Amino acid sequence: MSLGEFDLIERFFWRPAGVGPHRAVVGNGDDCAVIAPTPGMQLAVSTDTLVEGRHFLSTVDPARLGHKALAVNLSDLAACGARPVAFTLALTLPRVDEAWLAGFASGLLALADAHECELIGGDTTAGPLAIGITVMGEVPAGQALLRSRAQAGDDLWVSGTPGEARLALEAFRGSLRPPLSGEAFEAVRARMECPTPRVALGLAVQGLAHAAIDVSDGLLGDLGHILRRSRVGAAVFVDALPVSPWLAGRPRDEQLDCVLAGGDDYELLLAVPPEHRARMAALSGELGLPLTRIGRLEAEPGLRLWTGALDAGAGAPAPQPMPHRWASFDHFKS
Amino acid sequence: MSLGEFDLIERFFWRPAGVGPHRAVVGNGDDCAVIAPTPGMQLAVSTDTLVEGRHFLSTVDPARLGHKALAVNLSDLAACGARPVAFTLALTLPRVDEAWLAGFASGLLALADAHECELIGGDTTAGPLAIGITVMGEVPAGQALLRSRAQAGDDLWVSGTPGEARLALEAFRGSLRPPLSGEAFEAVRARMECPTPRVALGLAVQGLAHAAIDVSDGLLGDLGHILRRSRVGAAVFVDALPVSPWLAGRPRDEQLDCVLAGGDDYELLLAVPPEHRARMAALSGELGLPLTRIGRLEAEPGLRLWTGALDAGAGAPAPQPMPHRWASFDHFKS
Repeated sequence: MSLGEFDLIERFFWRPAGVGPHRAVVGNGDDCAVIAPTPGMQLAVSTDTLVEGRHFLSTVDPARLGHKALAVNLSDLAACGARPVAFTLALTLPRVDEAWLAGFASGLLALADAHECELIGGDTTAGPLAIGITVMGEVPAGQALLRSRAQAGDDLWVSGTPGEARLALEAFRGSLRPPLSGEAFEAVRARMECPTPRVALGLAVQGLAHAAIDVSDGLLGDLGHILRRSRVGAAVFVDALPVSPWLAGRPRDEQLDCVLAGGDDYELLLAVPPEHRARMAALSGELGLPLTRIGRLEAEPGLRLWTGALDAGAGAPAPQPMPHRWASFDHFKS
Repeated sequence: MSLGEFDLIERFFWRPAGVGPHRAVVGNGDDCAVIAPTPGMQLAVSTDTLVEGRHFLSTVDPARLGHKALAVNLSDLAACGARPVAFTLALTLPRVDEAWLAGFASGLLALADAHECELIGGDTTAGPLAIGITVMGEVPAGQALLRSRAQAGDDLWVSGTPGEARLALEAFRGSLRPPLSGEAFEAVRARMECPTPRVALGLAVQGLAHAAIDVSDGLLGDLGHILRRSRVGAAVFVDALPVSPWLAGRPRDEQLDCVLAGGDDYELLLAVPPEHRARMAALSGELGLPLTRIGRLEAEPGLRLWTGALDAGAGAPAPQPMPHRWASFDHFKS
């Protein structure tokens, strides 16, 4: 790292002692940062890079981009049930734009502070805009939530109202008929540009959930990872899916496209044994976050979509298999 | 991460159980990898990105590039006295070139295996070639080697024969008169493209060295970091500097340029109290690595270069201050 590069990180990202979280015993500016693991805890590590034009639009507000770059990494910790500790930042910049850097740092560090997650190392290089973050968190030994421990019979839950980020992307692409209102556009745009990592939920479902994943590539695609890793199948009841108020008035096909295949929401998808239904409902209230039961895991491999009620009682119409393109994802089969 | 990207990492970089080191309790392919810290150890973390055209030439052999990308990060662990444990890889690629990926992975993983450092997470994106690595190592609690604990009176030691990587760079630039022989060029080119991180040395000087840094930006520039952080000055004896056999026949000015200001060698610069001189000499033999005493730290701020003998006895000519451009680095003064 050249002196100039070091100065850049130091100037825009390091804070004096007493400002922001301080989890490191040896701070930045040495060859390594050093953190002291809490006894009995294991370290969860994840890494994600955002590249301009591929993961974000060049016009995005830099503060929102700073937020999102860390949020997508915190979301991976959330999906493991890990508490954030620290992160490193590798920034590739086409030029030194001080206003942009100040904005980016403000969004990044505000989210870092909110989760007491310390920036412990950084590296800046010249090149096309890209942001690489490696995040570290702690989880009690043996308690990490995995993709591979879901069981047939588990309920399938999803947090929040997935699909809003995809709705925003389609609005940017100009593909929505009718177009969104200005108010709806700003709301879903904020969800796409400024996602909320479900860290508190990930921590709260330790001991409840058998498996978890964050919805970054789309609900069905990410569910597929759980199915393959856990060697189970799933029934998803489309009429039970949570529908964002911004999607409520849209065509049904568009709703399902957004909810089932839209990525970038960073909600959590959870496999939870049925005996914890009441606890999950209570948790929703405690966290102020919708938690919706959308289906169940089954022993038969593959993914099946159904219309009708998830818990159809006697006399209610029986659920019907849904002939839908989402049901034909062969690569879900284990 | 899209499925395609995941496949790319899985195909070229993940190994089956039993091949390569396995330090993670939860492997790659989940939202996070999970590693179990050894009780009593702290975690040293460093991150470095290599960008094509800036940190390496586009013509470099991909296996050497894979080696170097990890080596520069392991070198940071070495400078902290930390034992490598695991690393993450963020790869930005202009295209999927299978031969290139196979070569890159072979060089990267061979060095990882040699240091029992496991690849625990990865992310691939499309874009101009860049390699971002975050490495984690372990160091006994409170024992990390820092830049800030050097003391006046400490000897200044350097490992190996710094300056060879710079000689190679100048050869690539065509600036050497006379040019290097073919044999010399291949030798110094290997040093530039395939540096050896001094991990064993970093571990061995725990309890001996007060401070350490790896020479990535040039010996005097990196010494400056120790001087500023430790609030001391230094006297460096240029006639005591180790001179590579490939530099031995070169003009003296070129030798000093390469040794004092050449970066990219990844040797270690160490501040060690004089009572450990015999131990350092023995260590050199044990490690098969030259360790050379090149000066001392002094209470007076600033950096002074001297000609003459480092330990001039009675009757020997007194050392003379060296009027040299390297002596005028004002930013070394604390």
